[in-house]
Amino acid sequence: MNDEQLHAMRHSLAHITAAAVQRLWPDAKFGVGPVVDNGFYYDIDLGEIKISEANFPKIEKEMRGIIGYGDDFERFEMPIDQAIDWARENHQPYKEELLNDLKRSGTTVAKDLDVSELGLATDGDSAVENVSFYKNGNFVDLCRGPHVANTKDVGAFKLLRVAGAYWRGNEKNPQMQRLYGVAFATQEELDQHLEMLEQAKLRDHRRLGKELDIYTVSQLVGAGLPLFTPRGTILRDLFASYSNQLRLGFGFQKVWTPHITKTDLYETSGHWAKFGDELFLVTSQETDDKMALKPMNCPHHTQIYASRPRSYRDMPIRYLETTTDYRDEKTGELGGLNRVRSLTQDDSHVFCRPDQIEAEINNLLASARELYSTIDMNLRVRLSYRDDGDGYLGEQSLWDSAQAQLKAAVVSNKLDYFEQDGEAAFYGPKIDFMATDAIGREHQVATVQLDFVQPGRFGLQYTDAEGNAQTPVMIHCALLGSIERFLSVFIEHTAGWFPFWVAPEQVRILTINDTVLDYVDEVKAVLNGLTLMKPVKYNEIRYTLDDRNESLGKKIREATTWKIPVQLIIGQQDKDNQEVSVRTQSGEEKLKLDELATYLQKL
Amino acid sequence: MNDEQLHAMRHSLAHITAAAVQRLWPDAKFGVGPVVDNGFYYDIDLGEIKISEANFPKIEKEMRGIIGYGDDFERFEMPIDQAIDWARENHQPYKEELLNDLKRSGTTVAKDLDVSELGLATDGDSAVENVSFYKNGNFVDLCRGPHVANTKDVGAFKLLRVAGAYWRGNEKNPQMQRLYGVAFATQEELDQHLEMLEQAKLRDHRRLGKELDIYTVSQLVGAGLPLFTPRGTILRDLFASYSNQLRLGFGFQKVWTPHITKTDLYETSGHWAKFGDELFLVTSQETDDKMALKPMNCPHHTQIYASRPRSYRDMPIRYLETTTDYRDEKTGELGGLNRVRSLTQDDSHVFCRPDQIEAEINNLLASARELYSTIDMNLRVRLSYRDDGDGYLGEQSLWDSAQAQLKAAVVSNKLDYFEQDGEAAFYGPKIDFMATDAIGREHQVATVQLDFVQPGRFGLQYTDAEGNAQTPVMIHCALLGSIERFLSVFIEHTAGWFPFWVAPEQVRILTINDTVLDYVDEVKAVLNGLTLMKPVKYNEIRYTLDDRNESLGKKIREATTWKIPVQLIIGQQDKDNQEVSVRTQSGEEKLKLDELATYLQKL
Repeated sequence: MNDEQLHAMRHSLAHITAAAVQRLWPDAKFGVGPVVDNGFYYDIDLGEIKISEANFPKIEKEMRGIIGYGDDFERFEMPIDQAIDWARENHQPYKEELLNDLKRSGTTVAKDLDVSELGLATDGDSAVENVSFYKNGNFVDLCRGPHVANTKDVGAFKLLRVAGAYWRGNEKNPQMQRLYGVAFATQEELDQHLEMLEQAKLRDHRRLGKELDIYTVSQLVGAGLPLFTPRGTILRDLFASYSNQLRLGFGFQKVWTPHITKTDLYETSGHWAKFGDELFLVTSQETDDKMALKPMNCPHHTQIYASRPRSYRDMPIRYLETTTDYRDEKTGELGGLNRVRSLTQDDSHVFCRPDQIEAEINNLLASARELYSTIDMNLRVRLSYRDDGDGYLGEQSLWDSAQAQLKAAVVSNKLDYFEQDGEAAFYGPKIDFMATDAIGREHQVATVQLDFVQPGRFGLQYTDAEGNAQTPVMIHCALLGSIERFLSVFIEHTAGWFPFWVAPEQVRILTINDTVLDYVDEVKAVLNGLTLMKPVKYNEIRYTLDDRNESLGKKIREATTWKIPVQLIIGQQDKDNQEVSVRTQSGEEKLKLDELATYLQKL
Repeated sequence: MNDEQLHAMRHSLAHITAAAVQRLWPDAKFGVGPVVDNGFYYDIDLGEIKISEANFPKIEKEMRGIIGYGDDFERFEMPIDQAIDWARENHQPYKEELLNDLKRSGTTVAKDLDVSELGLATDGDSAVENVSFYKNGNFVDLCRGPHVANTKDVGAFKLLRVAGAYWRGNEKNPQMQRLYGVAFATQEELDQHLEMLEQAKLRDHRRLGKELDIYTVSQLVGAGLPLFTPRGTILRDLFASYSNQLRLGFGFQKVWTPHITKTDLYETSGHWAKFGDELFLVTSQETDDKMALKPMNCPHHTQIYASRPRSYRDMPIRYLETTTDYRDEKTGELGGLNRVRSLTQDDSHVFCRPDQIEAEINNLLASARELYSTIDMNLRVRLSYRDDGDGYLGEQSLWDSAQAQLKAAVVSNKLDYFEQDGEAAFYGPKIDFMATDAIGREHQVATVQLDFVQPGRFGLQYTDAEGNAQTPVMIHCALLGSIERFLSVFIEHTAGWFPFWVAPEQVRILTINDTVLDYVDEVKAVLNGLTLMKPVKYNEIRYTLDDRNESLGKKIREATTWKIPVQLIIGQQDKDNQEVSVRTQSGEEKLKLDELATYLQKL
């Protein structure tokens, strides 16, 4: 089944869901019912009645009944005024509102909604005359289609959850109930997906984050502003170090910039006009300075570049900064580490000559490849190019050369890739990295982004070999992206069983009794003497000692609950034989103490 | 000469300065003329006339004339209404305003000025009746005194600078000219001080910060928000690492908290009521959250402590975070790195039982001692205790025990100390560290601060051995204080000749000609193989190569301008002999290549 067919199937299921709800609750008023990843939803206003998961079997039974009828999906059109009458007569005020908006403003209606999902039969900018409907059995819905031919063609589905959703996403509008379902061509695919969701639930980083003491949230500090405990901070720091070390090897240099700035900086960069309402504003009570929290770091970095004259011999100049940006996300959208208001980026900016693009991209791709391969995630990249449309800034020849250099770097790094025209930013082409996790989900992670515009806006220059002023190209890159979001992915990817090198507590020594404490000191000496050099340099072993007067079974259970990668169990026999019992996820084995360091280095 | 005598001398010189100005510009209107560190100033309104340094010889000549008359300073009193008449008749509107304020509000007048400096003859809260004046020759000034007996007794002085100053520090008031002078008992002391000022000018971190490419400021980003270049970031990072490593050795753990918070956090901590108007306020455009940038980190850290139950066995819990705080300083007060709006603190908080205070303080003092001894600064500490006054929170027995533990730790660390009653914060006693720089200036740096109050306000607890809930004590400590301010001190202390371990560019290889390039690779291999372990662990050698086709003289001059601690000069003879010529501030010497690593480790 191809993507269009799957889309039609899921969209048809949205209609069938609404039809089922209407049978059960004839006063139901409907909003919109689009297709989403793996399924669909429908927004429904049932007045005082609240749907819960307990109602799902009843709704699904009704849906199966409708499917069983085997009605065709029939398309028909009517003039928009007649459609408005239809909505009014059928007590569908939300549909009526959409139709009125559509009539008033043509296709630019409902910028807050995806018009194509509304299924309005309207093309281009012409005035709207007719709108289309789809009918299956006695259920009629305003819709652009397409749908499957018959209700029997909808594959396997399951209602998944219901959540509140404001009409048109606006908190001032009525709250509706958004009923989500998943749907696939076959029951087998559906079962796989449900199994994956079950797995995802077990791996939920919010649960593991609490159980493994990685981060906390405080009502006094606020939503979307997680605080990292000692264990979580080790994860943050090691990944940031790793990401930095990879690039420091390619001549990057660390810089530091403050988290706030006068908004003048963003007026110059152009961000203020585009994203001004997504910023946290900062008010000085002492001065009239108009300021904001930085949502990205490039404008700050241009100011370091601009602080001295630069020559072609100095290029590329490569700045690296792991720093926290702040974005004013709606609190309703905040959850765990996935979407936060304080996002720490392992950000870097290269200022280079146009002929240096490929070599620089090469270094960045090699860094990304190594990082994601270290944590066992497959990478796939999208090359986003310009198309023939207007609005792309920078000379065509620069675009052509840059796009060719991006592709050459991707090919020479043997990365799995696909190309998309028209997906570039207006200021330059880019490479997006998608990483697949242990349960098959794909996450957008690193990006490499060319920028032909910002250097000019800030008047950045270098002197070329002939003594002329030239404008550098900028290359934005974050390997982890947001460290918070990366950790949410990493925790779920590993289910909290972190690889040895990055585990906050790598080793726990469990004593069987206190006659071995002198021998424990010898074991500690081995651990104290060991510093891992891969993948991160200067990574000292983090271990603890559980020498409580408790049973070994209890000690092992606790260490396992904490998902400590290596438990070293020490009893009298180990002491006598100068051995340790090493217990990991893959079992238990005896090691000579003098083999321990080598063993740990290979984990 | 004791401090009171010196104070009287400097204050008398303020009068003499005003008298001289009045002779030269009879229409001069006078504000206040207090004593400040090392000297005095007088605020003067000369209308359109601007004093510049070019006028100083003329004013000083006039002052010497007045001193030469040998007039006594004569004290007399008059009723306040008569004093107001005197001010009006003498066209002294600023004095008139002060006297009117004083009459209206008694001693609570002029909260913006130090009344004792105004020399008003007023005691306690009683209504003001008489005010005192001092007269020398024909110059009369409203003044509390005391003064020296005779104008001849004023020691050695020099006018130093003139700057604009708003009347009573308020931007809405007229701008006056503040004429500063320095004064000492003897010419020798004055000369020493002037020499120190000259030295300080040469070492000015704002000049060196630019010359050595350490930081920059951008008008687009704003005042007091320095951006650190690669070289400056190396200094920041190494000092932060050092400060962290010292404490990590004592069981501290790194944590991470966001830079913003809902103001609820500070309402609970009590900071909002006390310092609410010194915060940068943060406005969300998406939500109604009332937020602020954090000006300190303790309230955030309490939330990590509070995220899990704690037992007496877990204590002390020690959090460490190097993070940037934001304080809404007036832009007029911002200069270089000394006073910034973005201040990065190497902050730490211990949560401990009362019986653990001494051991914890001991560790922190040992850390501070090692850090400042490494950079050759002498430390002196002030022990600030409570007195019998009201307003100290926490039980007296806790204070007594804590103060005794602080002192014991200071004594056992053999630190030079003095004690001051009544200097404690209301929430606990503290230790302030003063460090003396290479030209004799003393800077307040680290602090260790006990806190009996915040843990209770946040309801922090631990379970004691009997299972009862107890409130921990908090110990705040920053070793560097603000890293920005620390760097301003450090740059001036070293005059930019940074010690080898921390120099951003530690080694520069200078080639004499290009026949030695293969040998340079051998030298590089030595440098690449060397990682310093003291004072900071894992400190890789930072070197560059100057192999330009320029004269050795030019290369040496440039490297010296950059204050590179080690220049390695490589010529054919060095290559032939497997040697390097090592050039440092203390001269040049030949070394065998295989001795180089050991030599550098000992620097």
